[in-house]
Amino acid sequence: MHADKALAFAAHASPLTLIPARKSAQPSPQRMAQRYAQVRAHTLALAEPLSPEDQCIQSMPDASPSKWHQAHTSWFFESLVLQPHVPGYRVHDSRYAYLFNSYYESLGARQPRPLRGLLSRPALSEVRRYRRHVDQAMLNLISQLDGDEARWAQLAPWIELGLQHEQQHQELLVTDALHLLASSPLLPAYGLDLSAEPANPDAQVPVLHAVVPRHSADSGWLKHPGGVIEIGAPEDAPFAFDNERGRHPVLLRPFSIARHVVSCGEYAQFIEDGGYDKPLLWLSEGWSLRQAQQWHAPPYWRRHASGHWQVFGLQGLQAMDVDAPVSQLSYFEAAAYAAWAGARLPTEFEWEAAALSLPEMQQIDGAVWQWTGSAYLPYPGFKPLEGQASEYNGKFMVGQMVLRGGSLATPRGHSLLSYRNFFAPSARWQFSGLRLARDSH
Amino acid sequence: MHADKALAFAAHASPLTLIPARKSAQPSPQRMAQRYAQVRAHTLALAEPLSPEDQCIQSMPDASPSKWHQAHTSWFFESLVLQPHVPGYRVHDSRYAYLFNSYYESLGARQPRPLRGLLSRPALSEVRRYRRHVDQAMLNLISQLDGDEARWAQLAPWIELGLQHEQQHQELLVTDALHLLASSPLLPAYGLDLSAEPANPDAQVPVLHAVVPRHSADSGWLKHPGGVIEIGAPEDAPFAFDNERGRHPVLLRPFSIARHVVSCGEYAQFIEDGGYDKPLLWLSEGWSLRQAQQWHAPPYWRRHASGHWQVFGLQGLQAMDVDAPVSQLSYFEAAAYAAWAGARLPTEFEWEAAALSLPEMQQIDGAVWQWTGSAYLPYPGFKPLEGQASEYNGKFMVGQMVLRGGSLATPRGHSLLSYRNFFAPSARWQFSGLRLARDSH
Amino acid sequence: MHADKALAFAAHASPLTLIPARKSAQPSPQRMAQRYAQVRAHTLALAEPLSPEDQCIQSMPDASPSKWHQAHTSWFFESLVLQPHVPGYRVHDSRYAYLFNSYYESLGARQPRPLRGLLSRPALSEVRRYRRHVDQAMLNLISQLDGDEARWAQLAPWIELGLQHEQQHQELLVTDALHLLASSPLLPAYGLDLSAEPANPDAQVPVLHAVVPRHSADSGWLKHPGGVIEIGAPEDAPFAFDNERGRHPVLLRPFSIARHVVSCGEYAQFIEDGGYDKPLLWLSEGWSLRQAQQWHAPPYWRRHASGHWQVFGLQGLQAMDVDAPVSQLSYFEAAAYAAWAGARLPTEFEWEAAALSLPEMQQIDGAVWQWTGSAYLPYPGFKPLEGQASEYNGKFMVGQMVLRGGSLATPRGHSLLSYRNFFAPSARWQFSGLRLARDSH
Amino acid sequence: MHADKALAFAAHASPLTLIPARKSAQPSPQRMAQRYAQVRAHTLALAEPLSPEDQCIQSMPDASPSKWHQAHTSWFFESLVLQPHVPGYRVHDSRYAYLFNSYYESLGARQPRPLRGLLSRPALSEVRRYRRHVDQAMLNLISQLDGDEARWAQLAPWIELGLQHEQQHQELLVTDALHLLASSPLLPAYGLDLSAEPANPDAQVPVLHAVVPRHSADSGWLKHPGGVIEIGAPEDAPFAFDNERGRHPVLLRPFSIARHVVSCGEYAQFIEDGGYDKPLLWLSEGWSLRQAQQWHAPPYWRRHASGHWQVFGLQGLQAMDVDAPVSQLSYFEAAAYAAWAGARLPTEFEWEAAALSLPEMQQIDGAVWQWTGSAYLPYPGFKPLEGQASEYNGKFMVGQMVLRGGSLATPRGHSLLSYRNFFAPSARWQFSGLRLARDSH
Repeated sequence: MHADKALAFAAHASPLTLIPARKSAQPSPQRMAQRYAQVRAHTLALAEPLSPEDQCIQSMPDASPSKWHQAHTSWFFESLVLQPHVPGYRVHDSRYAYLFNSYYESLGARQPRPLRGLLSRPALSEVRRYRRHVDQAMLNLISQLDGDEARWAQLAPWIELGLQHEQQHQELLVTDALHLLASSPLLPAYGLDLSAEPANPDAQVPVLHAVVPRHSADSGWLKHPGGVIEIGAPEDAPFAFDNERGRHPVLLRPFSIARHVVSCGEYAQFIEDGGYDKPLLWLSEGWSLRQAQQWHAPPYWRRHASGHWQVFGLQGLQAMDVDAPVSQLSYFEAAAYAAWAGARLPTEFEWEAAALSLPEMQQIDGAVWQWTGSAYLPYPGFKPLEGQASEYNGKFMVGQMVLRGGSLATPRGHSLLSYRNFFAPSARWQFSGLRLARDSH
Repeated sequence: MHADKALAFAAHASPLTLIPARKSAQPSPQRMAQRYAQVRAHTLALAEPLSPEDQCIQSMPDASPSKWHQAHTSWFFESLVLQPHVPGYRVHDSRYAYLFNSYYESLGARQPRPLRGLLSRPALSEVRRYRRHVDQAMLNLISQLDGDEARWAQLAPWIELGLQHEQQHQELLVTDALHLLASSPLLPAYGLDLSAEPANPDAQVPVLHAVVPRHSADSGWLKHPGGVIEIGAPEDAPFAFDNERGRHPVLLRPFSIARHVVSCGEYAQFIEDGGYDKPLLWLSEGWSLRQAQQWHAPPYWRRHASGHWQVFGLQGLQAMDVDAPVSQLSYFEAAAYAAWAGARLPTEFEWEAAALSLPEMQQIDGAVWQWTGSAYLPYPGFKPLEGQASEYNGKFMVGQMVLRGGSLATPRGHSLLSYRNFFAPSARWQFSGLRLARDSH
Repeated sequence: MHADKALAFAAHASPLTLIPARKSAQPSPQRMAQRYAQVRAHTLALAEPLSPEDQCIQSMPDASPSKWHQAHTSWFFESLVLQPHVPGYRVHDSRYAYLFNSYYESLGARQPRPLRGLLSRPALSEVRRYRRHVDQAMLNLISQLDGDEARWAQLAPWIELGLQHEQQHQELLVTDALHLLASSPLLPAYGLDLSAEPANPDAQVPVLHAVVPRHSADSGWLKHPGGVIEIGAPEDAPFAFDNERGRHPVLLRPFSIARHVVSCGEYAQFIEDGGYDKPLLWLSEGWSLRQAQQWHAPPYWRRHASGHWQVFGLQGLQAMDVDAPVSQLSYFEAAAYAAWAGARLPTEFEWEAAALSLPEMQQIDGAVWQWTGSAYLPYPGFKPLEGQASEYNGKFMVGQMVLRGGSLATPRGHSLLSYRNFFAPSARWQFSGLRLARDSH
Repeated sequence: MHADKALAFAAHASPLTLIPARKSAQPSPQRMAQRYAQVRAHTLALAEPLSPEDQCIQSMPDASPSKWHQAHTSWFFESLVLQPHVPGYRVHDSRYAYLFNSYYESLGARQPRPLRGLLSRPALSEVRRYRRHVDQAMLNLISQLDGDEARWAQLAPWIELGLQHEQQHQELLVTDALHLLASSPLLPAYGLDLSAEPANPDAQVPVLHAVVPRHSADSGWLKHPGGVIEIGAPEDAPFAFDNERGRHPVLLRPFSIARHVVSCGEYAQFIEDGGYDKPLLWLSEGWSLRQAQQWHAPPYWRRHASGHWQVFGLQGLQAMDVDAPVSQLSYFEAAAYAAWAGARLPTEFEWEAAALSLPEMQQIDGAVWQWTGSAYLPYPGFKPLEGQASEYNGKFMVGQMVLRGGSLATPRGHSLLSYRNFFAPSARWQFSGLRLARDSH
């Protein structure tokens, strides 16, 4: 059933991410080289509005400097592709493994995460040199494999993983930079209009950023009949992460899901109604945080002297757009809002089932990541990626919640509908909002 | 299918907890009065080996003083039964609501949890007087309801909730006291032999504390065929918590589950094999904790100068019993052990399905709570308890993991097979161990 | 010059502490035995109003349980007198050295200070048995030395040190207990009237707790001409601590000092005038603390709904006595008050000079310890006590400020006018107030 | 007596700092303009080896980014000179007052100190523009005052204060940058040779960086007879800070002081002798820190695999120079070393008396600041600077210890012999070492 829907959905999603591709559809070396160049260039484009100083600072332990993202993604190619697979490859600088390893225990010691902001050296210009060194070696490697199908079949998935990994860091680069800018008393604007960004040539993803009607309108709810639904990346997807693999049936009860994500205007009503002051709406841990850290609104909202809300975003501090999706919410705020609205968060399975089969569902991606009521846990039969990538996803499978969809900062065509994003429930700096769900009666 | 199994299982479990009771099976006032007296007396019996000073100290923020448990459970009856339902009831001391409310926002302000250990006053003797005041009022109330079936039907569930609540605190009283004793350089023994404790007259639960064979033995694994399984407390269970209600079908794949829980001897092999020093076995957050807090073994284990392990337990520090269940494990340690053993933790659904349908499964309760791989989340259609009890369970549904079964400190007949215990994955002071599972091939 | 004054002053001070005694005036064994029994009994009398639970709890890391004080002072006699000097002495319990050593590195490992509150065992009754064991051995020792002048001359100073040490802990027992009681939502009264306590038979120290006139009155200031003043305990004082020894001349400029300590009524004016909200009155570190911990008044003050102040003290929460000395002030509050009053704190040298030579100076002791503007540093030629007592005082000589005088909780006759009390400037649980000074023109 | 000595000493010290200048010796506007330009240019020269990223990062809460120092010193001139004294002066950017105020409560709210590293904006180039704006206005002001002696007499001290303030920040810029570089796994060299820096034209301060003989040599001790010594800046010094004003007599006992500061070679012997493992050498708080933070050597020392010491300094990581002064010591380490050496730290009065009167005393400045045994407290009759500068020094007068002398990073001619530097006893990133003293017999 869902397969048809998936095909239907392909009209407004990337072929890379959704159309069930045959194994032979693996991109050719030429195509991969082109894609490699595009993805790597996109990282630099995202950093373009940022000064060397902006790119160096770590504004909180969970965020990383832009420069670090640029170096780390290069180190990833160096460590997982070039060093193991290119005989005689000389690393650009042997000290970088320590500086730019993120969390791979099997790849050695590393700069502690909260201290990434101490790395004024290497300078940004030197990191760019590092990127060029890696790019040249990668493109050489890819061109050498043209014609060697056996080695290509072996290496292409690792290159693809590196690109997907870089795309994940592209979004983090934006959210981390925005956190830094929001931490400045000057509130400088990032300035890039990501919603206008040219889609990649492989995928024509229409921008789904539509006007959001109030969810109180009847037409705001879409019904799903439930049943046994296959969940997870299709077996023949050209790429999928280990955590979304292991396609398996899930039994769902009938449910309804909101056509749109919750808007700023709706969320402002929750605030006006005292939502931040009613403990019975909140999870216990969320209420403690709200008390300790004095939450009164989403973190990038400012109350203007006139009483109107302003929201700090990519274009700086601007009057609140009531139709824009509410963003930078913690799970706790999302869940409190849902309780206030007499609804709940969808499970990640409901979300995936609805996204695949309800064409009326809007803002699936391109707006905000949507907190689900599902904990980030392994799918049945979960198998981590091989070798040094085995630490990629699995070791975070406790204490975090799944977000589905994709945001305006998610590179177009990056995430499958089966993509499982995850963050700690206290995280408040991602483009994270919510979509409501409820039981059907 | 499982219903038959449940009936079969009733042979060695409490009728209160397992036999599908008809609605009319609600205990009579006389029977309830008897049960009330027994449960309340059992709390005092558990505190018997502890001095007034032992009962006053809070050894860490997550633990509560024994005296506080004794007062809080009385406050619970006072606030949820006596005050709302007994006209003219005078509270024993109006200040106790502040002192002994645990976390009920709807019931007013309260002594902060980490400061419960500052309450040297009221003295233990005064708390005992408080208990007697409440007991008298409760027993009066119950006897007055004899004959008034309408009011009895209305009030009996609240009384039952109060007793179940007290039983939960009985286990916490023991685990918290043990933590205090383990924190003393003198390592004094608690001394009570809980495994020998007389079962309650309603339930003849055989002690399941059998010798544990190595799981490497083939016969250690029990197969379950999977399928669509009904999960949750039976509709007609005389009592069940809100979080286990909402019986619903779950789709399971075939799996195997260990006949026994993991023993100390098995866990010692994990330690000897360097399990605490291999980051790839650990979840990321667990490895961070293990590093920061220098975990090298379960918290109550001590390496004797001879090299042999000693384990601090209810009887004090004793030579490790290789066949005893390993206990006081965090989720992180349980998961690392499972990874080391080439297995995994069962989901809570697998555990429940197996416990209901595999009569060979041993140590279901009476030994240790068993960490499952399931996050503590609401069941579909979750409805909190009514009124002031609505905060009982639901507001903790994030960031915690489910444990199933029951421990040697769980009051006999307290937990249903559907009972969902839950703790933060870092918790290391409960009688918490594990049972292995794996996919069937 | 000052010597005469000291003699004059002896009229209202203890001979033990002030009258220049000849070396031969060392108390005889009989007299010492009597004094030993009195001091040790006084400790028990001070604990009398406290329940075993009150005596067991540690209300903050800087405070110690009453029970611990009682055990520690016994351990002090055991370790510094009995073990080194009584052949064949058997310690009461070999584990107590670990439990009740306070900070003596040379005497081995010890229970960490912030964890003293975990020691529910040994029970109070057992600690009392320990005290009796030590008392018996000490009194035996003293009586054996009757007649053996050589050994007596050698041992008497150690016994005296132990008694002085116990007296220091008597005051801490009271201040720590008061902190615990003040931390209870019930605010129970300690109840003992220390100002009425019978003076020891050796010393008739009149209670100096007189009514306090406003310092604005002209007669509130006493002039001192300055000059070269000898500071420190007289060479022939029968007992003095190492930190007050090393009598030496100090050059003082003319100054004035207040006749009385600052009263609650005066301090309330400081509060009403916004003293807690004017950063320019405060030392930088004090202002940070005041901000972070939300100081608005002394810690034991409560604003009644009527707007009047209540003060929690030994007799519980009572209406503020405007003439009572303000107490439980941090150094920061004392210094801010002085700045507000257009004055300053006296140096410890000014204080000592004035106390010795200005008979009009009131409330020298028996009211509150008085913060001085002097840091706690060694006197020229400072020599620590011998042997295991060498760690007694010297190792705290950084970061703390000197207080002079004595409080209502200081055992009568305990402190010399040269006595140097010291606490961190943030300490807010002692009977600590202030007396103003200013330059003379 | 000491006045003669001061004159004698003038041979090797700056006239600005030491020669008793007549009131009329106040520099002329032309001379001040020249000096202003030199001091301001020197700040930029010190930042020259640092990249924009180096200048932006805050490596710990106590350190500030180089860029911040450059902006703050400009703000100081703007706030204390230009705004109050130049009619119609327009601030460069009204938001900078918030960003670059350090701690002046009377001058408004400010960016919290630990968050100075979040200020990626304004960019370094913009801060430089700010400096030029201020420089132009300041030089205009100075030239306008040429001829207006009354206003010049009024304003010149404020300009001088601004320059002295900038010189203080020059040293901090270097020590803070060095801390950042030492925090980098790459250990990059700062590179500037400060000991070779051209002295300012007003002062020919000879570089005192002589070879250091072992203090064990008899000739290492210099005797001072003690007596009544005048301490503090001469009344007619052209400039002195408020904290060194209030010249007053102090009574000193005879003492000896070391000819040289303690060298790395000597300190290495302390380490080899187990100095970091002997609690009896340490102050209690120092020992706690040493335990908690695992101190085993000065913070910039590294033990090479060969066993030899390397020291990270301005020229990067280099083999230890046994004759170089030991630096970056906390007060606790300095005091422990002195105890180990059977000596003590001099008081600040002994240090000043010796520096003024013992011409054989070497390394008075130009090497390291020298911890003294004196707490940083007000001199008798202390009067803070006027107006907005009143918060400059006085509000830090608790909990800190005085250092005397000057380091290789102290601008030549900046510090008087009466200069009182001060830091918390735990500070370990300044050029802070020690000189021994002892009582004379």
